Formats: sequence, structure tokens, C-alpha cells
Amino acid sequence: MLKLKPKRIEITTGNKWIAVLQQNNADKLDLHPGDRIELTAGKGKNKKIVNAILEISDDGNGIGDKNIGLFSETWNRLGVKKGDIVNVGLCPKPLSTIYIREKLTGQHLDYKKIDFIIRDVVQEDLSDVEIAYFVAGCFIHGLNDQETIDLTRSIVRNGSRLNFGKGKIVLDKHCIGGVPGNRTTMLIIPICTSLGLTMPKTSSRAITSPSGTADTMETLAEVAIPADKLMKIAKKVGGFIAWGGGVDLAAADDKMIKARHPLSLDPEGMLLASIMAKKFSAGSNHVLIDIPVGEQVKISNKKDGDCLKKRFEQIGKKLGMKVKVILTDGEEPIGKGIGPALEAIDVMNSLQGTPDASRDLREKACEMAGMLLEMCGKAKVGKGYNMAKEQLESGAAYRQMVKIIEAQGKKTLYPKLSKLKHAVKALKSGSVKYINNALIARIARVAGAPKNAGAGMWLDKKLGDKVKKGEVLYTVYADGQEALERALTFTNDGVYKIG
Amino acid sequence: MLKLKPKRIEITTGNKWIAVLQQNNADKLDLHPGDRIELTAGKGKNKKIVNAILEISDDGNGIGDKNIGLFSETWNRLGVKKGDIVNVGLCPKPLSTIYIREKLTGQHLDYKKIDFIIRDVVQEDLSDVEIAYFVAGCFIHGLNDQETIDLTRSIVRNGSRLNFGKGKIVLDKHCIGGVPGNRTTMLIIPICTSLGLTMPKTSSRAITSPSGTADTMETLAEVAIPADKLMKIAKKVGGFIAWGGGVDLAAADDKMIKARHPLSLDPEGMLLASIMAKKFSAGSNHVLIDIPVGEQVKISNKKDGDCLKKRFEQIGKKLGMKVKVILTDGEEPIGKGIGPALEAIDVMNSLQGTPDASRDLREKACEMAGMLLEMCGKAKVGKGYNMAKEQLESGAAYRQMVKIIEAQGKKTLYPKLSKLKHAVKALKSGSVKYINNALIARIARVAGAPKNAGAGMWLDKKLGDKVKKGEVLYTVYADGQEALERALTFTNDGVYKIG
Repeated sequence: MLKLKPKRIEITTGNKWIAVLQQNNADKLDLHPGDRIELTAGKGKNKKIVNAILEISDDGNGIGDKNIGLFSETWNRLGVKKGDIVNVGLCPKPLSTIYIREKLTGQHLDYKKIDFIIRDVVQEDLSDVEIAYFVAGCFIHGLNDQETIDLTRSIVRNGSRLNFGKGKIVLDKHCIGGVPGNRTTMLIIPICTSLGLTMPKTSSRAITSPSGTADTMETLAEVAIPADKLMKIAKKVGGFIAWGGGVDLAAADDKMIKARHPLSLDPEGMLLASIMAKKFSAGSNHVLIDIPVGEQVKISNKKDGDCLKKRFEQIGKKLGMKVKVILTDGEEPIGKGIGPALEAIDVMNSLQGTPDASRDLREKACEMAGMLLEMCGKAKVGKGYNMAKEQLESGAAYRQMVKIIEAQGKKTLYPKLSKLKHAVKALKSGSVKYINNALIARIARVAGAPKNAGAGMWLDKKLGDKVKKGEVLYTVYADGQEALERALTFTNDGVYKIG
Repeated sequence: MLKLKPKRIEITTGNKWIAVLQQNNADKLDLHPGDRIELTAGKGKNKKIVNAILEISDDGNGIGDKNIGLFSETWNRLGVKKGDIVNVGLCPKPLSTIYIREKLTGQHLDYKKIDFIIRDVVQEDLSDVEIAYFVAGCFIHGLNDQETIDLTRSIVRNGSRLNFGKGKIVLDKHCIGGVPGNRTTMLIIPICTSLGLTMPKTSSRAITSPSGTADTMETLAEVAIPADKLMKIAKKVGGFIAWGGGVDLAAADDKMIKARHPLSLDPEGMLLASIMAKKFSAGSNHVLIDIPVGEQVKISNKKDGDCLKKRFEQIGKKLGMKVKVILTDGEEPIGKGIGPALEAIDVMNSLQGTPDASRDLREKACEMAGMLLEMCGKAKVGKGYNMAKEQLESGAAYRQMVKIIEAQGKKTLYPKLSKLKHAVKALKSGSVKYINNALIARIARVAGAPKNAGAGMWLDKKLGDKVKKGEVLYTVYADGQEALERALTFTNDGVYKIG
């Protein structure tokens, strides 16, 4: 046991519960980086204990051997102030590290073990390196169907849930991503709920894309809404389009993404569990999943798509959910807007059927909404598409969207765009043969999306469109000159190919 | 490109080349934790460029959006001072991250790819999480013989080497560890070199044990000796017992250990490569490897030992080295001293044949030295043991040890012990049935070994010894009362079992 003075470290870059000892103090307790230590501060009723992850500083000037460095959150959780004393003792590693090692060695984990790991991930009791080993184990050995279901259930258990009551039909849709734009959700929800169905949609913010559905919706209405209020909204207008992080559904997921990013690891079982956990937590029982297939997206061929489709359906069945999976074209952006406000305008145009509404966005939304209507028995087989189309063309879906926006907390029906823009023009005539999705996403992000909601791109031309030399291909929007110029450095012949 | 002011962060806990951006600045360049950024400072001749690993701070008070946080080493390497400007640009991830991903997916890596990884490990260009993924890939998929040889060669290439000239017989021995005490090296080197043979020995400091051979030797003589001086010593007295870290042989190894520790991962191929690289770098061509087998050490049964033995021999053959591997008893500590000074005294007693010399240490050393003498043709088959024994009993080995100590830089021939000690006595009579190696190691470490060279344990009784109630089993040495008491909290019935 050591008695040290707490020293606050303001910079949080990784795990929350980190404490830093100078090398000589670590040696006194025979400790190594990543070991756990028990920190105790206060007395009597004010006594607080935190099990922290140890980092060791070999930099003589850094911590000092009378002190223990505490990251801000550890400092707050221990409730210490300058001059206090922190008792430092030994503490075993969480059991979950043993189970992570088992997964690495190729053993299958049962529900109890998986749940230990997920609980510790959510509570920030595992270090980045330990979570990386779990990701590696799942990536290499895969997760079998039972493990995937157990992981799903555990992610559900370690987050909040919505409950619409037994027997109630609750719809949802999900796209596994990779296609810029593609804001079909914001058309499908109003189409289905305008028919009296329940469709509560929690979406993510952008991770690597220029905008998530939550970012786009946020330009029109509030999206960070607590669970109890979401339930009221759903009862009132049938559905919502909210940010999942606001209700803490599937909280484990975000924490694992940080470990997956450095090598872009996407273990299929984790992907499946992540998606299904979000649907299950939201109370959904009829789910349509959109898998874009194409050379520029996660799933590059039909065979892989079919395989993933089968797993989604199997897991859905075991969880008691009706799941339908469709493979769609992932070769070009869907819609014209890229970036929160630009996408929202695209959606509102498409709901209203204005002259520059996106035909592809409307079409895909009606197809998918139609499938959902057929899945839940609202429409007869073969009649779903027409029923959806009717809601869109009659304006019922647009009026329903306005109701949803008002129920969530309306901001505007036509968000502002960034004040600076630059149109990129065709260098020759022909037709658009190819659009580079990755470059589109990068340009929009560097222009400021999603942080600057008005930034991004408007795609004036789409795949197959005829173009004359000098005509505008796309327009880049940014809040400031510097961001606009940075974004324009990525514009070149490779973004659009004219042939 | 961003222009920011450098802010020095004094606490180094992980990689050296780390830079910290506040979240909003990272968003401007579309960057995520673990991405690489190019930092440029200075102008003209003073211009310096560093590719750093990015961490992102979401703590508003931490870095500030006009600043970039630089860990001390990054600060020094960039040569900045307060008020300077650092240009921050994008920079691709090292190619080695792609090869790490390949290893994770089960592909075999060729020499070129392995060498990219090892070079980046040595240069600190890979993050802890990335190195962890490499360890995971090697742990799960294993390294085949060719990869192990390539890894060995790469570790050799990315460190220093000793060269004794073509055709020269150079001996070495290695123990894969796990047994406390076991300082046979310090008897074998003087035995062999007293016969005119060359035996340059580089050893490690303690990682998880109470003392490494380098720590023990350091109580008698200097051990941090540069390569050129080591060559002179070897020419003068035939051999030395130096710290490997001082000559930077196999530098990649230490960096990988940090990633292996959290889950105690010991990929066999890495273990093999690490050992063989050290031997190869030291110029050795006749190597004896000691694999202790027992329930308390790394290798728990003969079958695993035989399998490892075969791999050592195969790899040795491919590297052009003569390698002999022996399986020895790993059930109890060898010798009586645990901790640097206590082990050194045990060695010196055993070389001199004093009444309390350790019989088991002398015996094991003569057996192993004998094998080396036979391997290199100095002794005829079957005559090695006696030749070694003769050197020990005649005092020739002791006189040679004194020469080696003097050549390296003598400190003393009888190091000081810690001033406080506590004898732990038998609670009943009987004979020693079991000694818990892990507890022995922990007690000695908590008592202060290896940092406090005089701290540790003296094992007054060994396995099989008769004991009367009240007789001393072992004695704990520590520099201070606090450390002694901390160490004694680990002493209990489980350390020695009397039956």
C-alpha cells in the first residue's frame, strides 16, 4: 500500500479510469502498465474506491514520486482535491481479461463470459489494448451464431431499452452503410407512420461519413431525446428519428469502434450484433435490412452479401424478430445532398416532390417502405410499393414528417447552407460513368461536415447523366475560406469520370 | 494543414511520438485516434519533420484549440520551443499496419513485410494497439519456421551485432526462464572461458522476476558496456556477462513485451525469435538452451518441452548455428539466493566451494558447461562434465570470474545485503515437499528486488530438506521497514509446504 498525493491530468485521450504512477512507485508494488490498482480516498461516509488502469511514467519530471496522476474522470469519481491522500493498493485484473484471452485462443465464449466483457467495456474497465485483443479474437476466430446472439443480448442488457408492449408491431430499417447520402430512412419513417404504424428509429451520428441520419435530422429537429420522451412521441405520432446515443441503446458499441479503427477491423459477428442489438433495444420486431453491394462499399459482391443476409435472418429468427434483407446497388450516392443540411434539404424536396427532388431517393424509399408494409401485413403481397408511393405523392408523408419534426422539437423545415460555395465543372462532354464514393465523403468532411451542418456537397449530376463541358458536376459548400480550399485540394478528375 | 502552437506534455506513458489534438481540430482534418499526422517545425536548415501518432482529447480544458500537445520526446525531436508554430498535415499510416492486418487475417508474412513491422516497432512508429494486433496475429496463427527465421533475422538487423570473425568458436547458453535463482550462467562462463574458450554473454535485466543475470552481475561489476569495449574484454579474458540492453542487441524485443504483458501472451514464434536473435547478434555459433519443465514454469510437460526443443534445433540449423536443447527440472529454485546481491553471493560461494555453496547450482552448472565443452569439441564425448568439475574444484573458474569482473569494471567480490531482515520459521517438523516459485518471486520483488540490489530472499531450506519446527525456512531482506512489512504480507503457509 502506498500513500500518494493526487495530481490532476487534464488530457483524456483513452480510457477514463486511468492512473499514472512514476516507475519507482510501480516497482514498489511490482506493477506493470495495464495492471489494475485500487485507489481509496476519503473517510467514513465519504470514502470512495476506484479500480483504475495503471499507466507508468518513466519521465522524471512528469508525475513525481510523491504523487499519483489521475485523469480528470478518475479525479472526479474519487472525489479528491489538491492536498488529499490517495491510498494505492493491488487489485486483480477484471475476469473479463481471462475470457478475452480464451477468445484469442479460439475458445467459444458462453453468454456469461461475453456479458462480463461487454459490461467491463461499457464501464470503461478494460484498456484499449485489452479491447483490441477482444476485437482480434472475434476478427480471427469469428463469432458463431450462438456467440453473436449472446453478444447481441449482452449489448442490449448493458444499455437502455424501449418497450412498446407485447404484441405491438414495431417496424425498423437499417442500412449497413458505405453509400454517401442514402437518407431513405427519413422518407420511410413518415411513409409508414402516416399509415398508422409504429416505427421508432434511433440512428447514429457520422463516424467516418460526412453525416449520419441523426446529424441530418438534427438540422430539422432535436434528436438528443431521453427514452421516456421518445416513448411519448412514438405514442403521439407513431415514430421518430432520434440519435441512438441519446438513449444509450447499445452503448458498448461505440467503445469497441475505437479499437477497431486503427486496422479497420470489422468482425462480421460484431457488426451483426451491433445492428441487431440496436433494433432489439428499440423494441423492433419487423426489420428490413439494406445491404448495399458494390466495389466501393463494405460488401463487394453478391456472394458475400447473400452470406451476410442469411446470418441476419437466422439471428433475427432466434431473437424472435422478423427480418428481411435486401441487396441494393452500392455504386453511387443515393440522393443529391451530402452533409447534414444538404441531405435534409434533399429529403424535404423529395417528400414534397419539388422539381429537383431526387428520383433515386424517392424510388428506393418507396420500394423499402413497400416491403415493410407487406412484412407486417399492412399491405397485401405485391401491393406495398403502390401503397407507399401513394402516401408520398399525396403529400401525406410530407405532412407526417412535419408532425414528427414538431413532436421532436422543430428547428426549421429548410436548414441554412454554408455561405461559401464552389462549383466544380466538367472538363469535357459525355456521360457520368463513375463517382468515387470515398472521395465524395472525404471532400464533404474536409469541407466541414458533419460538424458544420451547412457544409458538404450537392451532386448536380448523377451516374448516367449527360454532361456538357463546362456544366456543373457538383458544388462544394463550406463555412470558411480555409475549409473550402482544403476541401478543393481533394477535387480532381478522380471524383467524377466522364466517358 | 493546420498551424498550431506546441504545448509540452511531460507525462510519457506509451509511445514516444505522440501528438494530441483537441477534437475540433481533429475533425477539421477528418482524423481519428491512431491516425498519423505530419508535424513540421522550423525553417530552412532547421526545418524538422516528425510523423506522429495522433491521440484526440475530448477534454475542453486540456490542450486548447490553438495548440497541439507533444509528448516530451516528440517535442525534443521537433526541436520546438514555447511560442513556435507547428504545421500539422495528413500522413499515411505506415505500410507495416497493412502487413499486421495481413498477419491477423492468417496470411504468412515474408521477410520484407516482417522487417517493415520490426523496423517500425524499433523506431516507435507503431501504436500500442497496433503492436497488440501484431502480437495477436502471431499468437493465434503462429509463426511458421520460415517466419520465425525471418523475424529472427529482422530483429538482428534492427539492432547492433558483435563480430568475432569467421570460423571462431563462440559459445552461449540460455535458459527460457521461470525458475527463481538459477544463476548457472555466472558459473558456466568462467568455467568455459578458463579453458581458453570464447563465451560472450549478454543477459537481460529482470522483467517479472526478482533479478535478471544482468542485475545480479551488476552487483559485482559494470554491465552496461558498449559493444566495442565488450569486444576488447572478450579478446582479453575470453568472455563477459553484460547487459544486452547496453549493446542494443534485439532492441525490438523489449518494445513488444509491453503489448504482450496485459494478457500474458507468449507467442512461441516470438519467444524463439527473441532468443535466437540475441544469440545470433552476439556472434554465437554453439548454443546450449535450458528449458525448465514443471507445473510452475512456462513449459509444464515433457511433450511441450520436446516440441519446443525441436523448433529451437531446426531454427538453429537454418541459421547455421549448433544448438543443443536440454529439459531440466523446473520445480524448485536453483541455488539459495533470490535477488541481485543474494544471488551474486550464492554464485561467488559456489565458485569458491565454501561450506554453504549451493550444491544444486554447482551441479547444474557443471552438467551444462560439460555439454558445451563436448559440443565444441574441447572435451571428448562423456568427458565434459569432469573437465568442468575440475575447473570448478581447482579454483580455476573462481580465479577466471575475478578476471572477468575486473575486466568489466569491478565493484566488489561480496556485495552488501539490505540492512533489515526477517527469518520465516517452520510451524511444524517434517521435510520440504513444495516451494511456490511465484510467491518466492513476488516476495523478493515486493521486498525491493531488483531495484534495491540488497533485497530479496535467502532460501535456508530447499526441496527435500528435513526441517524441525522453529527452524528458519527462508529469510527476507529489505532496505526499509515499509518494504519489509509489505513483503511479509505475502508470506504464509503456501510459500513452503512441509509434509
